[in-house]
Amino acid sequence: MLLLTLLDTLGTFAFAVSGALKAVRRGMDLFGLTVLAVVTAIGGGTIRDVMLGRQPFWFHDSSYILLSLAAALIVFGLYRVVTRGETLLLWFDAVGLGAFTVIGATKAMDAGLGAVGTIVLATLTGIGGGIIRDLLAGDVPVVLRKEVYASACIIGAALFWYLARWHVSQAISMPVAMLVVIVIRLLSLHYHVGLPRAPVPAEPPQEP
Amino acid sequence: MLLLTLLDTLGTFAFAVSGALKAVRRGMDLFGLTVLAVVTAIGGGTIRDVMLGRQPFWFHDSSYILLSLAAALIVFGLYRVVTRGETLLLWFDAVGLGAFTVIGATKAMDAGLGAVGTIVLATLTGIGGGIIRDLLAGDVPVVLRKEVYASACIIGAALFWYLARWHVSQAISMPVAMLVVIVIRLLSLHYHVGLPRAPVPAEPPQEP
Amino acid sequence: MLLLTLLDTLGTFAFAVSGALKAVRRGMDLFGLTVLAVVTAIGGGTIRDVMLGRQPFWFHDSSYILLSLAAALIVFGLYRVVTRGETLLLWFDAVGLGAFTVIGATKAMDAGLGAVGTIVLATLTGIGGGIIRDLLAGDVPVVLRKEVYASACIIGAALFWYLARWHVSQAISMPVAMLVVIVIRLLSLHYHVGLPRAPVPAEPPQEP
Repeated sequence: MLLLTLLDTLGTFAFAVSGALKAVRRGMDLFGLTVLAVVTAIGGGTIRDVMLGRQPFWFHDSSYILLSLAAALIVFGLYRVVTRGETLLLWFDAVGLGAFTVIGATKAMDAGLGAVGTIVLATLTGIGGGIIRDLLAGDVPVVLRKEVYASACIIGAALFWYLARWHVSQAISMPVAMLVVIVIRLLSLHYHVGLPRAPVPAEPPQEP
Repeated sequence: MLLLTLLDTLGTFAFAVSGALKAVRRGMDLFGLTVLAVVTAIGGGTIRDVMLGRQPFWFHDSSYILLSLAAALIVFGLYRVVTRGETLLLWFDAVGLGAFTVIGATKAMDAGLGAVGTIVLATLTGIGGGIIRDLLAGDVPVVLRKEVYASACIIGAALFWYLARWHVSQAISMPVAMLVVIVIRLLSLHYHVGLPRAPVPAEPPQEP
Repeated sequence: MLLLTLLDTLGTFAFAVSGALKAVRRGMDLFGLTVLAVVTAIGGGTIRDVMLGRQPFWFHDSSYILLSLAAALIVFGLYRVVTRGETLLLWFDAVGLGAFTVIGATKAMDAGLGAVGTIVLATLTGIGGGIIRDLLAGDVPVVLRKEVYASACIIGAALFWYLARWHVSQAISMPVAMLVVIVIRLLSLHYHVGLPRAPVPAEPPQEP
């Protein structure tokens, strides 16, 4: 599907840029920046493929890694320009989240998974790269701390699964589910929507 | 085996609760809490299955994830009640550790692994979920820091392996090995037993 | 290949020692020390094998884990002696890096990967164990923070791939590529060579 390929490309680029930006802010050198860009871009899909018992998608298609390297070099060379366009990046990132979630859901259903398995694997595909990025940079993963992020993946994947059960063609269900993920993500960013917390004061980060 | 299924269920529930409790204490929202509950409960078994070249056990049996979600919601809604029963949770947790270790050892031996491979894989099955939980929450994994925890897995898995070598029926070796893990764990909690450290002052957490 | 086996053994030992040393410095007990030694030694190869859809190399050959245990016990018992030989350890570590990278590249090419896939997988094999070690100990992985480390893997793996394309026998390309990794690593240590950073002040470690 041409649209999916385009959005997949945009998303890979945006995820790679988010990894590279975090590396710059942590004072990492050019190599650390490159590694963080690549793992952020390919991490989620790699987790998905390994769990499905397949070889990672980048084993036989180097375009994803080359695209991530290009994103890393752009951030390295044009840091000030890139950060000025950070709103645009959040849009890219939402597009990547939607594309990765739907691709993950498609592959999970192809492997015969049920509703729960499909939703979990699609969500892991969407958020996996960002989790690895944050762990490597020494942060608690942002998806665990705030914002409607993985929730958007869960809703989109669930919708995709039900549309498929009702025999809706993938030509319709894929863009629809992807759009739902993207719109939920962008709306939550715009309105600063969050999920409730349990009514307990947070402890300091390290246990006694 | 009915007993094993029962203990596996208890253990999954206890591990999910431990993940959810940690999330509440870190001030995470409802989604972070749910994710941490699920990965703590299914993390160890997922690592085991991926290493064995199988698809994760929750791909085609959603009961584990639904049970973890239930545990997450209970913690979210009844935080004060749950924490009052923390001693009970440590018992559940020990039961889970025993069940997961024995299940891991069984699957490892079915795949033809030797003694060392079986012990390592069984231990990873027992402690994997807790390690992922602590990494995601930004802590050094508790099994690396204190207490006889993984040691209990190692002894139980080694015992299980030798019983199998002596052609003891699994109907006997499984509950026996499981009980050994649980008893060692509970005794070490009761008597605050720890392993020795190398005689060197600890450095501050971040290298210069 | 006898030479490769020898260097693989030296490298496994050196990686296990580096994990055990970090555990001692973090005040971990004997078990934490043993776990950190083992995962540092076998982590990179395990990631490689899982991605290739194989069972980890230590499933059916317990010598790697037993060697790592021996390294852990030596560090535990002879901490002062081991630290006095830390320069020697950096040499061992460089040898391990070279051996692991070349073994990773060989297995990647056997699986039919192209240049980019081979380089990425070989690098992951070389640096994976150290990344897991640092994550478990609560540090940002050292390969992301400083020094020509993974860069040495990348150059060695690329060289190995091109030599294979030119039909150079593995009896020549393996030691040559390994030597290149080792020499680059040791030279960068000797001359304190680093890669450039993007010209931006680093932020504090935790985001607001």
